[in-house]
Amino acid sequence: MADKVSPLAPAGFPFLPVLPGVRFAAHACGIRYRDRTDLLVMELPAGTAAAGVLTTSKTRSAPVDWCAHALKKGRGRVVVVNAGNANAFTGEKGVASVRRTVEAAAAVFGCKETEVYVSSTGTIGEFLPDEKITAALPEVARHLKGEDWERAARAIMTTDTFPKAATRTAMIGKTKVTLNGIAKGSGMIAPDMATMLAYVVTDAAIPAEVLQSLLKKGADRSFNSITVDGDTSTSDTLLLFATGTAGNKRPEKAGDKLLKDFKEKLFDLLTDLSHQVVKDGEGASKFVEIRVTGAESAKAARIIGLAIANSPLVKTAIAGEDANWGRVVMAVGKSGQKADRDKLCIRIGGVEVARNGLAVPGYDETPVVAHMKGQNIVIEASVGIADGKAVVWTCDLTHDYIDINGSYRS
Amino acid sequence: MADKVSPLAPAGFPFLPVLPGVRFAAHACGIRYRDRTDLLVMELPAGTAAAGVLTTSKTRSAPVDWCAHALKKGRGRVVVVNAGNANAFTGEKGVASVRRTVEAAAAVFGCKETEVYVSSTGTIGEFLPDEKITAALPEVARHLKGEDWERAARAIMTTDTFPKAATRTAMIGKTKVTLNGIAKGSGMIAPDMATMLAYVVTDAAIPAEVLQSLLKKGADRSFNSITVDGDTSTSDTLLLFATGTAGNKRPEKAGDKLLKDFKEKLFDLLTDLSHQVVKDGEGASKFVEIRVTGAESAKAARIIGLAIANSPLVKTAIAGEDANWGRVVMAVGKSGQKADRDKLCIRIGGVEVARNGLAVPGYDETPVVAHMKGQNIVIEASVGIADGKAVVWTCDLTHDYIDINGSYRS
Repeated sequence: MADKVSPLAPAGFPFLPVLPGVRFAAHACGIRYRDRTDLLVMELPAGTAAAGVLTTSKTRSAPVDWCAHALKKGRGRVVVVNAGNANAFTGEKGVASVRRTVEAAAAVFGCKETEVYVSSTGTIGEFLPDEKITAALPEVARHLKGEDWERAARAIMTTDTFPKAATRTAMIGKTKVTLNGIAKGSGMIAPDMATMLAYVVTDAAIPAEVLQSLLKKGADRSFNSITVDGDTSTSDTLLLFATGTAGNKRPEKAGDKLLKDFKEKLFDLLTDLSHQVVKDGEGASKFVEIRVTGAESAKAARIIGLAIANSPLVKTAIAGEDANWGRVVMAVGKSGQKADRDKLCIRIGGVEVARNGLAVPGYDETPVVAHMKGQNIVIEASVGIADGKAVVWTCDLTHDYIDINGSYRS
Repeated sequence: MADKVSPLAPAGFPFLPVLPGVRFAAHACGIRYRDRTDLLVMELPAGTAAAGVLTTSKTRSAPVDWCAHALKKGRGRVVVVNAGNANAFTGEKGVASVRRTVEAAAAVFGCKETEVYVSSTGTIGEFLPDEKITAALPEVARHLKGEDWERAARAIMTTDTFPKAATRTAMIGKTKVTLNGIAKGSGMIAPDMATMLAYVVTDAAIPAEVLQSLLKKGADRSFNSITVDGDTSTSDTLLLFATGTAGNKRPEKAGDKLLKDFKEKLFDLLTDLSHQVVKDGEGASKFVEIRVTGAESAKAARIIGLAIANSPLVKTAIAGEDANWGRVVMAVGKSGQKADRDKLCIRIGGVEVARNGLAVPGYDETPVVAHMKGQNIVIEASVGIADGKAVVWTCDLTHDYIDINGSYRS
């Protein structure tokens, strides 16, 4: 945990209401950190449906493998998350650590093993001292509470400079339901998830397969549309649980009209959480929104947006408050997606600086310069092929990023 | 041109022998720079065969479009290169600038237009004052010489901190042939001022289609295997000319036994030039070689190698002299290529730090720490799938990179 809070951090931690039957506790196991909590245990009521989106890394960790296995059943009762050790690249020993943690949690909470989800975040390649977790579980289970989500969010932080959470309410038919979410992540952030963990719980009653479909769509336009450094973690995990205690009419499929408002609020909450992750990007001083239009498809637009967002030349120009649209052109070109060089239009802070493949002669630089000095940068690129569009978010690349990452282990 | 020469620069400029009929001149046109040469004109003898590898950017510049057009004929008589303005993202005006430059050069040198190659490197989105080039051509043509390749190499520099060249000799049958090459590029192969350009000339007699095949193969394992920041210029151009004055027996195809030594020396020269580009990477303090083995194919190995080489987390760790192999694991995973997490082996400076998916218990850290403090870093990753292998090269990511790129235009 860094001492300095990101300049892009929100003013304060939001108030998250109690969700019936959802209880949690944070504990200090001393896995890596001293004098702070590093274990989060969350209990969910019987009958909770589960959905998840996991890292696409080919070297994903043992805990992620386990979550993928458990998600096949679509049920959730317990979530166990530790910070400080990723239990990644730990071979059979890592698998055994997960196994023991799951068995212990299932025994303590009296549920099936496939109702237990585990996540580990922190250093790669070191064995997880899981005995510290399993030894703590019985005691932790006696101190579960339904409030203080901030304590929960803090327990899963690693290099994060602030705890991340969001809450929304939605109507499903005539029933009001609530969604609460917490997240962590500040580096190694890229689409397909990075060491990014997020847990969202709602009291809505929604079948697991419907929940999964909603989460997949929501993740694509939130967590899969953000990037800090283009690096992808071995551990990224986004889980969504629906406890059903709100007693709403159950939707049968993702396209159900009943879900219109819920879907919107879910996507909004996921976007909020994902933006908080970007705003805690290592060394970030500016939050950058990149809107791509005119691409061959939405997918092509997202690839172009990410090429711009991941370009070190674009990111350093933004850090230097330089409206260097030539670098945006370069990034569009390198994306590999179709773009018409002679129809390309670029706007910075709403001001058109390039049109139809040419610099706009004598555009007013004053508002552009002012925009670049702000904390929220908006870059728009229209690539002149078809109607595909996408929005992605990133932060700038600063000296602090190098300071943080040039000495992480030491 | 930066004041400070890269710490990784070679001791001095190599001696390049005169090639019969190959003459050149450098000139100060004042396109952007003051008090330095910014135009290179090279004349090649009649009958010279031409081959080229160009940027894959979808927003490539008008000069690159022209080179692609001219290369269809496979002949070369004149090369015109300017530094300071990339003539990229300049629309129809940019195309007209190229047209006028080509027409003027063809008239001055009495050759076909498709025997003229043009390159421009520098700022994007500004119109090229081609009249400064065309006005200078008649005078420049009167001052051509066959020696002083250093002057030629200096005229095409932008943010480069040293001029780049290499020379080799090879036997084709019983005939000794020579290869001379110059290059520019300062890391990220970026559009602003850091495009990669390279021109190689040999006195060998080799048909254009054979030359093209050799160059494509050679580029894959040299210029297409280097990266500074993963950014791709709109202007990257690598041209190879064979004048035929050596009078060797003409090979008929790329697989011809006659070409065995030539091919080896060509690849060696291209590798040498490409390494010099990496060693002039913006802010580079260390040269990094990444060897990937055990991949599904050579292509998969190169993708994995580039994922490691482009990872900001790996690059900052190297700058911080931290043997953080966990980040190498992460980068292997994010590459999207097949890798067996539980067979993955990683060596740093020849010392195995991870084997079969696990940290090597108690490996000797002393030589690894010493290796990380050196200027030449070697990272090996064996991914346990098949026999595919590749080597890629990069540099570290330092504060100087951010300084250079955060304030380029101002």
